[in-house]
Amino acid sequence: MNKSIVLKSRPEGTPTLENFEFKEIEKPEPQDGEVLLKTKFVSVDPYLRGRMRDEKSYIEPFELDQPLASAVVAEVVESKHEKFQKGDFLTGMLEWKMFQTSNAKNLRKVNGDQVSLSAYLGVLGMTGLTAYFGMTDIGVPEKGETLLVSGAAGAVGSIAGQIGKIKGLKVVGIAGSDEKIKLIQEKFNFDEGINYGKTDDMTAAIKELAPDGIDVYFDNVGSYTLDAAMNNINRHGRVINCGAISLYNETEQPKGPRLETTLVKKSVKMQGFIVRNYEDQFNEGIQQLSKWLASGELKHEETIVEGFDQIPNAFIDLFDGKNIGKMVVKVD
Amino acid sequence: MNKSIVLKSRPEGTPTLENFEFKEIEKPEPQDGEVLLKTKFVSVDPYLRGRMRDEKSYIEPFELDQPLASAVVAEVVESKHEKFQKGDFLTGMLEWKMFQTSNAKNLRKVNGDQVSLSAYLGVLGMTGLTAYFGMTDIGVPEKGETLLVSGAAGAVGSIAGQIGKIKGLKVVGIAGSDEKIKLIQEKFNFDEGINYGKTDDMTAAIKELAPDGIDVYFDNVGSYTLDAAMNNINRHGRVINCGAISLYNETEQPKGPRLETTLVKKSVKMQGFIVRNYEDQFNEGIQQLSKWLASGELKHEETIVEGFDQIPNAFIDLFDGKNIGKMVVKVD
Repeated sequence: MNKSIVLKSRPEGTPTLENFEFKEIEKPEPQDGEVLLKTKFVSVDPYLRGRMRDEKSYIEPFELDQPLASAVVAEVVESKHEKFQKGDFLTGMLEWKMFQTSNAKNLRKVNGDQVSLSAYLGVLGMTGLTAYFGMTDIGVPEKGETLLVSGAAGAVGSIAGQIGKIKGLKVVGIAGSDEKIKLIQEKFNFDEGINYGKTDDMTAAIKELAPDGIDVYFDNVGSYTLDAAMNNINRHGRVINCGAISLYNETEQPKGPRLETTLVKKSVKMQGFIVRNYEDQFNEGIQQLSKWLASGELKHEETIVEGFDQIPNAFIDLFDGKNIGKMVVKVD
Repeated sequence: MNKSIVLKSRPEGTPTLENFEFKEIEKPEPQDGEVLLKTKFVSVDPYLRGRMRDEKSYIEPFELDQPLASAVVAEVVESKHEKFQKGDFLTGMLEWKMFQTSNAKNLRKVNGDQVSLSAYLGVLGMTGLTAYFGMTDIGVPEKGETLLVSGAAGAVGSIAGQIGKIKGLKVVGIAGSDEKIKLIQEKFNFDEGINYGKTDDMTAAIKELAPDGIDVYFDNVGSYTLDAAMNNINRHGRVINCGAISLYNETEQPKGPRLETTLVKKSVKMQGFIVRNYEDQFNEGIQQLSKWLASGELKHEETIVEGFDQIPNAFIDLFDGKNIGKMVVKVD
């Protein structure tokens, strides 16, 4: 018994369950040089929404009626590959299938001795590395500065904010519920939190909690939150454009205040990136994140949903902010 | 007989002559350590519009009923300063007065042996340095890339485009008349030119002349020209936000398409700056620009308006693009 999840139709606006289809497929046989993998943990991430559009981007769009894919941790259940054996755990980009074969070229071995296996999809995976390289390479935070983070209770934001604290910054987080605000302050050591659901004037709310202005803004959401951050940005401020989840389901290009005069007047840098730009430095990033985890300076949180059938739902829930920390689906 | 020009009222929208007032004032006496200066050339620049607003910015706003100021070349007509003597020419930020005294602390000596004195307000002054540091520090151009420049026939754009050519890029310029397009191609060596006055679809016009996309965009104008550049931007593109002249006279914050998803998807950097950020590297910049001028690789153009009384007019004309190259007022 094997199953896959394919893209049945391209979402218009917010994705729904009808955009996905479960298919019963054959369980494949590994060839020489291949492993047979059983999916254990599946990462669902906002950026996958972009791949569901029929649009050229930094990564190929998903094709209709073909399996979706994301970062996965899988177990080797049969190996004809010289480097891996049964019982090994591998991670990398894999399809949304219960079983699949792979030549393992773009997979790496991980183990759950020090951290849970799911951590390789979060703090020690793409989202942790995204926070790490965005902060260190684009944000270039200096002790004593003020960092603002949106999506602060999410997989990337929670790590970005903690890196800010480790580097000696004052850190203000924006998130969508009192529960999340409590979490970022109590578990993740943020200095201040703004519940955007209870905030009418975001510019004023930021000004109140960051009276010295914002030096670094780690943006996961875009739109009016970005505008409000720009209204508080300091000279030589850096905006890390990591994501814009509030805009991913828009069907027309959204409008907002033009930011170019602020950029000029205040010598501000806004820089977008994807984590893959730093591929050749992933080991460095993972080592540093692992050290901080081991020392207890860095903490992480996961929202684990159980069951292969729940993958589409978990993905859709990201856009309602139902996750705290990294959203991961555990497959039995 | 001495005169000054003061800010009579703050412009609303486009500045008019009524915002300025000429005042007859005393001719001052230099004290010990001072020089008496006679104004020879006055620079008028779009950024001065920002100082006419009652708004905190990187530079103090002009005060009502107080003299305006900009970069000036002046002649020493009397000296009680040990370093300077009668007949020397000095340049720096000075007030719009026919005669003024100064301790010369922020002035430097220039001479007209190799270049015209007015060049120190343009290609060897703030505008040349603006183009130089914007291109080299933010644009980081690579041979074989494509550079787009708006305000291409202006003081900054004409130099920025030529630096692009010197560095081996394909250079496309945007300007406001056929005469300017001819100039940037024939004198400044640009590969292509777009007359925005005759262009309905700027995105398509850029695409046609830069089919490989834009790697570096040197923006002097902002607004829909920036949007069109962003529609053509390549992965890892760099936008040098130098100015936004099309927005300086707006009375409300203008709106436009949100750019954050493009920044993320294409790993684009947008960075604003003012030339003063590079103050400690001005000598390096002037040396390089002088070398290129001497070798003939770099050319410059000036629009010289005659008469102290013409300063406000010359300033206002900037917003109609009446200048070609650097707009300078020559004072008799």
